[in-house]
Amino acid sequence: MKAVGLIVEYNPFHNGHAFHLQAAKEAAEADVVIAVMSGDFLQRGEPALISKWHRARMALLNGVDLVFELPYRFAVQKAETFANGAVSILDAAGCESLCFGSESGDISLFHQTVDFLEENQKIFDENIKRFINTGVSYPKAIAMAFGHLSDSGRYLDLAKPNNILGFQYIKAIHKQKSSIKPLTVARKNADYHDEHFASETIASATSIRKAIFSEDDHKADISQYVPLPTKQLLIDYFQKYHMFHQWENYWSYLQFQLIQVTPEQLKEIYEIEEGLENRLISAAIESNSFHEFMQKIKTKRYTWTRLQRLCVHILTNSKKTDIAGLSEKAQYLRLLGMTEKGKEYLNRMKKQFSLPVVSKLSSHKDKNIIHDIKAARIYSMVIPNSSKSELFHEEFKKPPIYIK
Amino acid sequence: MKAVGLIVEYNPFHNGHAFHLQAAKEAAEADVVIAVMSGDFLQRGEPALISKWHRARMALLNGVDLVFELPYRFAVQKAETFANGAVSILDAAGCESLCFGSESGDISLFHQTVDFLEENQKIFDENIKRFINTGVSYPKAIAMAFGHLSDSGRYLDLAKPNNILGFQYIKAIHKQKSSIKPLTVARKNADYHDEHFASETIASATSIRKAIFSEDDHKADISQYVPLPTKQLLIDYFQKYHMFHQWENYWSYLQFQLIQVTPEQLKEIYEIEEGLENRLISAAIESNSFHEFMQKIKTKRYTWTRLQRLCVHILTNSKKTDIAGLSEKAQYLRLLGMTEKGKEYLNRMKKQFSLPVVSKLSSHKDKNIIHDIKAARIYSMVIPNSSKSELFHEEFKKPPIYIK
Repeated sequence: MKAVGLIVEYNPFHNGHAFHLQAAKEAAEADVVIAVMSGDFLQRGEPALISKWHRARMALLNGVDLVFELPYRFAVQKAETFANGAVSILDAAGCESLCFGSESGDISLFHQTVDFLEENQKIFDENIKRFINTGVSYPKAIAMAFGHLSDSGRYLDLAKPNNILGFQYIKAIHKQKSSIKPLTVARKNADYHDEHFASETIASATSIRKAIFSEDDHKADISQYVPLPTKQLLIDYFQKYHMFHQWENYWSYLQFQLIQVTPEQLKEIYEIEEGLENRLISAAIESNSFHEFMQKIKTKRYTWTRLQRLCVHILTNSKKTDIAGLSEKAQYLRLLGMTEKGKEYLNRMKKQFSLPVVSKLSSHKDKNIIHDIKAARIYSMVIPNSSKSELFHEEFKKPPIYIK
Repeated sequence: MKAVGLIVEYNPFHNGHAFHLQAAKEAAEADVVIAVMSGDFLQRGEPALISKWHRARMALLNGVDLVFELPYRFAVQKAETFANGAVSILDAAGCESLCFGSESGDISLFHQTVDFLEENQKIFDENIKRFINTGVSYPKAIAMAFGHLSDSGRYLDLAKPNNILGFQYIKAIHKQKSSIKPLTVARKNADYHDEHFASETIASATSIRKAIFSEDDHKADISQYVPLPTKQLLIDYFQKYHMFHQWENYWSYLQFQLIQVTPEQLKEIYEIEEGLENRLISAAIESNSFHEFMQKIKTKRYTWTRLQRLCVHILTNSKKTDIAGLSEKAQYLRLLGMTEKGKEYLNRMKKQFSLPVVSKLSSHKDKNIIHDIKAARIYSMVIPNSSKSELFHEEFKKPPIYIK
């Protein structure tokens, strides 16, 4: 059985994802689709709209056959670390290829860009440092440094978010000496960050979330942009938990963390840089919402995304020592769900996997996995009381979702 | 000017307190009444019904002339530490006497009991240890060990809560070689822990709080048991903040603390004994309310009060290293409020005080005081958003209350 790997967040799964999934399957001539999906907190430092279990179910009902969780330690990270973790999981799960969406859509351009940058590594790195010292953010410095290389116009446009991710996937494949074959499909219509609906049926996840949160009762009609199972799962979630997750729900906990902590303790949190701790604490005391807090701490140097990730680390009490000690590659394959075909693939191929499959946490002990459990529990803290402790247990005892 | 000191919590100030205040003033022939009052968290490990600022105002409107805060480090503690801190503050503030309510009402019996126990110290301590090893709580072991001494029947009944406190006050006076003269007044009618109204006008603070919380809108009529200023301040507080504080309001933050912490970090919290950390974490995950949580962690060995204090320390992230490094006596006199007469006393006597008076935090740096600020902010976390950050600031910038 031939498997193609996808790296996803599905927040939520929409028609653009469905299109990509189908195109990936065809391009890879694959029998099985394996997705590695961020857990409850996402790469851009946000809580997912609905829990990872519900997003895994969404994926399975929409054509994915196996869903593995991208551990917290890789998910809430800059593109490079995110890519390294995701590629190591797809590789361990026996994927022959990895297919990502990109603005470019031309895989040879990705290879050429990676080669080109490897050749110009030294001057590229120097340029990045130089631009960072002028006070711009890291992603911006990368784009500027790249633009400064002569001939760079012949390569990928690294100012585009999906090109950057794809570029990092290919770098990770090189670095890990993985045999996965990278493929890319041009993204349809919607820009990643696009907040407005741009086509009849395809809209970005950002614009879909915006529509959902724009209505007081969260009942915006997004039917034309999402497959039926997505719509149904969103309705079910809201009926059960009376909410969709967003940063504002976690604000009081973030504020509490920043009030009960000393500046010295805050310095121990992952990605806190010297001097930031006092600013974060004062801003927390003076703010009445997450948005207000973010406005207060934002500077040219720190992107919104980077600060949001930092906030997730504060919220989950993730320390430098917790993350620094962990491997650069995944150590386990946490299975969130499977279809019948996915199960068949697992049964046939599992012995050749280079990492253990974790189906139930209660039967597995791994220092790395504690962070995922904690993140899931903190994610559930904002859910109404009676369902909360049910979810705390689920995280530990729930077997993978199985869809026949 | 002659000052009598009172050690209080006023949660809330009721007719029994008014009676005691008057009786103390007469017994001491004092011009001025100085109260040292627990801050936002109380000796029994509970949040106060309303904030320390409002309770200070209550005290001043009801006959107290000066209110100093008993720092967190002494307030949320067993009777001995509580007494040591409170006596050191009244002593530093120049009180000639200290007057406490007791079940006994006979001051010579207190002196005799302290002397008697000093003579029998060794066997008494041995007995306490012996009883603790049978699995009973510390207060119970004290009462049992005391009962085991021959002739103990001639002395104080140390099973009564106010006798125990008074006994500790006198021990603290001895220990600190203070010249404060202790006086006691027999408590009227209401037992400390009494949950039911027992007289026409005197009721315990416990029963008054119970009545307040028993009504959904917190509008139980307690008029006959409290002076008018108390009633008015409670009404004002509820109108402004839409709540009175109780443990259940803090449950989600306590649960959050226990979810985001590792067992190793939890062990660092003040008063956490070996082996308790995992039980606390599991119970937090399985409980839907503070009450449920407490039921799960309670054992014969740990009294409810002791566990509640422990919960306050977890909530406020108070570590062993934070508390262990602090002095056994107070280091500052934090002034919460004064009447005109109190101000006159301060002006005349301040130079003879053995500790500095702190009127505004923003003009004072003291390692000890950081804990009080943190506790006050955490206390305010449950207040509706717009008033919350106002309170965060107040704690730092507010001058003492002044009532002309």
